[in-house]
Amino acid sequence: MDSSGAVVLYVSMSLDGFATGPRGDLSILHSWAFGDTARVMSPIVSAEFFASGAVIIGKRTFDAGEEPWGDDEVFPMPVIVLAHERRGILVKGGTTFTFVDDGIESALRHARAAAGGRDVTIMGSPAVAQQFLNAGLVDELELHVVSVLLGDGTPLFAPLTRGPIKLERIRLIESAGITHLRYRVVRQVHSSPL
Amino acid sequence: MDSSGAVVLYVSMSLDGFATGPRGDLSILHSWAFGDTARVMSPIVSAEFFASGAVIIGKRTFDAGEEPWGDDEVFPMPVIVLAHERRGILVKGGTTFTFVDDGIESALRHARAAAGGRDVTIMGSPAVAQQFLNAGLVDELELHVVSVLLGDGTPLFAPLTRGPIKLERIRLIESAGITHLRYRVVRQVHSSPL
Repeated sequence: MDSSGAVVLYVSMSLDGFATGPRGDLSILHSWAFGDTARVMSPIVSAEFFASGAVIIGKRTFDAGEEPWGDDEVFPMPVIVLAHERRGILVKGGTTFTFVDDGIESALRHARAAAGGRDVTIMGSPAVAQQFLNAGLVDELELHVVSVLLGDGTPLFAPLTRGPIKLERIRLIESAGITHLRYRVVRQVHSSPL
Repeated sequence: MDSSGAVVLYVSMSLDGFATGPRGDLSILHSWAFGDTARVMSPIVSAEFFASGAVIIGKRTFDAGEEPWGDDEVFPMPVIVLAHERRGILVKGGTTFTFVDDGIESALRHARAAAGGRDVTIMGSPAVAQQFLNAGLVDELELHVVSVLLGDGTPLFAPLTRGPIKLERIRLIESAGITHLRYRVVRQVHSSPL
C-alpha cells in the first residue's frame, strides 16, 4: 500500500440497486440535491465529499452538469473527466477539469497526482462504477440508499464481470429518506470461498 | 385498517439487490443459516420472525426445504404455501402447511385467519415478493442486506409493475456481515409526485 488516500465510489442508489429510474430519470434519486426536505444528505457525508482531493466523473455526468453548474464552484477540487476524446484543460467556476481519453487507470493516476494524498472520489455513472469495480480499483463504497423501490431503471452494480465482491460495512448513517452505507472492499489475497 | 398485524416481506438480499446469485445460488446470501460466523442474523430480527402469526412461502421454497427440514420444527406457526395445485393440509414436524392454489389474495386471507391478529410474514422468492408488492399488499419490508455485491443473479424487486414504491425507514440494525433495514411502505392516498 502507498500512502495515498482511498478510492471511494460515491453514489446514490435506490434500495433495489438502481442508479437511475426508467429512461435515465434521476428526479427521485437526486431529489436531495434540489431542496427535497424528505430526503436529506447527511452533512457528515457531504463534508467528506468536499474534503476529497480529486474527483473522477464520466463524460455524461460532465455534459449533464456543465450547463446547470454554470460558473458556480460545484467542485472545490480538481476534477478528472473520463472522456472519449482529447481536450484541453478547462477552468470553470474555479474548478480545473482535466479530460483523460486513455482509460480508467490513467484517470486514476491523474486523480491521485492531483489529490495530494487525500481520497479520490468517483462519482460517475453505473458504467464508470462497474469499470472501476471490475478492475479492482475501488477501496470503499459510500452509498446513499434512497428509501424507494424503483423496480426498473439502470442497475448501479450489474453486470459485474468480477463479482461476487465481498464487502465489510464500516459505517452507517441514518438521514431523512436516505441511509448512508459505507463499505470497504475486501481484497482477497488468495481465492477462497465466500 | 383492520386490527390485524402487519404483512411483512422478510428476505435476504445482496447490497446490489439480488435475492440469489447466478443460477439460483443461495450459498452466499443464506450462509448465515449454515453456521457462517462472518454473517450473523440479528437475534432481534430472528425473534420477530418466530413471533409472527403465520408465514407465506412459495411452492419452490417449500420444495427446496421439504427434504432438508426433515421433521424439525422449522416453522412454529402455520405456513401457507402458494401452490399451483390443490393438495391436502400437511402436518410435518409440528407445522401445519396449507396449500393455496387460487392466488396471493386467497393466501393472505388464509394467513390472516391463521395468524390470530399477529404479523403475517412473506418469505417467498422474488416472484412471490413482486406479486405481493405489485398488488399493494405489503405493509413492511424487513431486508437482511448481506455485505456483498453479487453483480448477477435474480433481482429481488425487479421488475415491479407498480413502482416506484415510496418507503419510510423504520429501523436499522447492524449485525456481523448483515445490515437489517426495515421499511414501511408509504401508501399514497392520491397520486402525487415522488
